[in-house]
Amino acid sequence: MIRKKLKTKVLPIALVSVLAVTGITTFTLSTKADSSSSNQSKEDKKDNVQNIIFLIGDGVGTSYTSAYRYLQDDVSTKKVEEISFDSYLVGQQSTYPDDPAENVTDSASAATAMAAGIKTYNNAIAVDNDESNVTTVLEAAKKKGKATGLVATSEITHATPASFGAHDLARKNMTAIADDYYDELIDGEHKVDVLLGGGTELFDRTDRNLTKEFQKDGYSYVTDRDELLSDDGEQVLGLFAPAGLPKMIDRDENIPSLEEMTTSAIDRLSEDKDGFFLMVEGSQVDWSGHDNDIVAAMSEMEDYDKAFQAAIEFAKKDGNTLVVATADHSTGGFSIGADGVYNWLTEPIKAAKRTPDFMAQQIVDGASVEETLHEYIDLDLTAEEVDMVKKVEKSNDVTVIDDSIEKIFDKRSHTGWTTSGHTGEDVPVYAYGPASRKFAGQLDNTDHAKIIFDLLKAKVTIDDK
Amino acid sequence: MIRKKLKTKVLPIALVSVLAVTGITTFTLSTKADSSSSNQSKEDKKDNVQNIIFLIGDGVGTSYTSAYRYLQDDVSTKKVEEISFDSYLVGQQSTYPDDPAENVTDSASAATAMAAGIKTYNNAIAVDNDESNVTTVLEAAKKKGKATGLVATSEITHATPASFGAHDLARKNMTAIADDYYDELIDGEHKVDVLLGGGTELFDRTDRNLTKEFQKDGYSYVTDRDELLSDDGEQVLGLFAPAGLPKMIDRDENIPSLEEMTTSAIDRLSEDKDGFFLMVEGSQVDWSGHDNDIVAAMSEMEDYDKAFQAAIEFAKKDGNTLVVATADHSTGGFSIGADGVYNWLTEPIKAAKRTPDFMAQQIVDGASVEETLHEYIDLDLTAEEVDMVKKVEKSNDVTVIDDSIEKIFDKRSHTGWTTSGHTGEDVPVYAYGPASRKFAGQLDNTDHAKIIFDLLKAKVTIDDK
Repeated sequence: MIRKKLKTKVLPIALVSVLAVTGITTFTLSTKADSSSSNQSKEDKKDNVQNIIFLIGDGVGTSYTSAYRYLQDDVSTKKVEEISFDSYLVGQQSTYPDDPAENVTDSASAATAMAAGIKTYNNAIAVDNDESNVTTVLEAAKKKGKATGLVATSEITHATPASFGAHDLARKNMTAIADDYYDELIDGEHKVDVLLGGGTELFDRTDRNLTKEFQKDGYSYVTDRDELLSDDGEQVLGLFAPAGLPKMIDRDENIPSLEEMTTSAIDRLSEDKDGFFLMVEGSQVDWSGHDNDIVAAMSEMEDYDKAFQAAIEFAKKDGNTLVVATADHSTGGFSIGADGVYNWLTEPIKAAKRTPDFMAQQIVDGASVEETLHEYIDLDLTAEEVDMVKKVEKSNDVTVIDDSIEKIFDKRSHTGWTTSGHTGEDVPVYAYGPASRKFAGQLDNTDHAKIIFDLLKAKVTIDDK
Repeated sequence: MIRKKLKTKVLPIALVSVLAVTGITTFTLSTKADSSSSNQSKEDKKDNVQNIIFLIGDGVGTSYTSAYRYLQDDVSTKKVEEISFDSYLVGQQSTYPDDPAENVTDSASAATAMAAGIKTYNNAIAVDNDESNVTTVLEAAKKKGKATGLVATSEITHATPASFGAHDLARKNMTAIADDYYDELIDGEHKVDVLLGGGTELFDRTDRNLTKEFQKDGYSYVTDRDELLSDDGEQVLGLFAPAGLPKMIDRDENIPSLEEMTTSAIDRLSEDKDGFFLMVEGSQVDWSGHDNDIVAAMSEMEDYDKAFQAAIEFAKKDGNTLVVATADHSTGGFSIGADGVYNWLTEPIKAAKRTPDFMAQQIVDGASVEETLHEYIDLDLTAEEVDMVKKVEKSNDVTVIDDSIEKIFDKRSHTGWTTSGHTGEDVPVYAYGPASRKFAGQLDNTDHAKIIFDLLKAKVTIDDK
């Protein structure tokens, strides 16, 4: 919802106009990446960016992609094989917010920077430091007649997707954000054509049932994998869990993967002759990092990697699709190697069949510690390791038991963590397709939106239903 | 020294021939970075790489460059200003070794990869896993008639410079490495024309005085800043401390900065009409990381940054100089933010006038804790902070007292660490000048040597005096 207080006072009709950011920075950036500005303008003319797929690996700092490469390594060869991302690395970006109290970003501020091209405070959902709404690239794309989509493994109202498709003073207002997806219109039409992720409880509420409202307006509404894959509506709301989706490694067959959601979104959006803008978030690498859970982090990296590959595959076939993939920040102070050991062992991580959280829940639900660890961890655990978990069993606290299981994996793999929060280092940027060179070199997170606004050449008016 | 055991057995004349690695990988890399291979070959023809300056920030992972940007920030503006490196970021590289016991690299294996284009075991100085010598890019450059130089703030015989200019089964053999600098000849000439760094005790020994031997062969020998700056010999051995140099923040006026050593090296080497190859190492960011010392790390980043700027400045004037800067690995699991706090405060770090090591040494030498901390830290320390140091004062152990002082800075700045060793994440790559595009995208550390060998188009024979 747009600036609640001000809206009732100042904007009864809630008409908000925001100019798209101009492309001045873009030019500077491209000059850096290319050898001459005359080449640049020639190449610019060749660009035909019909579609944009913007992927955000939430929390996916360099440590995570490098660790995932170690994990995917074919150990029968001397070489550590490249992962999908490697072929498309073009640079990195700074992530700092403009917050009076904090200089390490949260996901809301970072996503607003990438979506709207402005620095703002932590917790801001596409609003600036004056608490005014700012136009997002998704809105600009819709204004240009393109189809639009948001895909995530968190609640689809979570900070990252919200900053592309909603406006709010605070990320925690997820019901208001769900309302925005329905209520905020562009040229009388809904802003987001494809919404896929978690968060049933935020749409199907006692005060309002947005799932019905969307259906009334022609959207399909799907709630499991089969329904998603068999539905072919061009507009769809897909909610596959009450809140966030389970981690990939914990999912059952009823829940689609991020790759399936991404492919399904692309299938629908690519029907639009005017092209599309799609934001895809691998949401839970970050959640795994907050939890200092290396098993979950690598599970979520795989889910995100496969979605990235699906986007690239489509772009390669299509020819007019720009794919950009980056992160909003890194999380957890995760390090490959810890405690003085020069060896990061992936076997213990691969031995997990479920996340420590899943196992902890089983134990709180009454399963025995020994049986649970034995069933879900394909390692000969020592008596000491089992005892560490047993010692906290009686807490009946999932978090405490979870922590004790995570420590088994940390110690065996030599994984380090420094924080339950985010960290401030630059994060990698990957790009493919027309205009991908514009994302090369050192960027700031705001540059993404500036470049995309420039590619879209759009001014936007948002009207609130 | 070259493979001591084998040398006496198999190679009495010690003639070692190694083929330079061919450029196949280079082509693949350039195709990635550029839009077409026909453009590529056109651009290749334009390249005139007369000189190469290869800078290695030992331990300078992404966290360190990003932290240094926070440190340099002009807080009176909203923007975090770019640092010198930012304009030249072209990608990142993987760093893993080929070691039977470890998959996180040490500096020797990583430097051998960058110098010789091969993966090898940790501790190897330009030898492969068969314990055979491998040709380095410095040797290839000398073979082509170019002037060559090594500059470092560590002992000049330390792992990184050694891997460019010597050969040994183990990095710890620093006297043998010093001998190599004198004894290993290419076409009857010394391999390295300019050697600047620390390590007097490794050259001026009871068993052998290499400083005299080098002087006999026409080298200048300088031991302080004034001597370095007033000497204009084309060949010079400069040793400014018994072992490594003091950290920048602890140096007195007799010790040159890394920038001054770099500029002095360039001044001499650029006299050679055939061009030059210079390796410059910012050695002690890594040492600071091992020590988990954020004050020292930022001091050494500044020293390294200024040397990088001097290299870029020369390259911009010269026009035919390729500058590449990267790291061998990251160190310490250093994170910007820790313990759940989204704020990395640079003021406490800037308040230090000396490193914690320096202060600890003063205390062990008899200075009072209060007076030492008061003199060298421009902060109102709490009684608790002072007491933390007092509590370990009686240990009379510099390391223990040092640790207690470091914790003051860690806690106040919210700096995190996970290890006293290295970590395995990819590290940034910066490049400027002709052929710099070849370093763009995702590289492996071995790619640097492969590309440089290709640019030099050289085969090399090393003969041992």
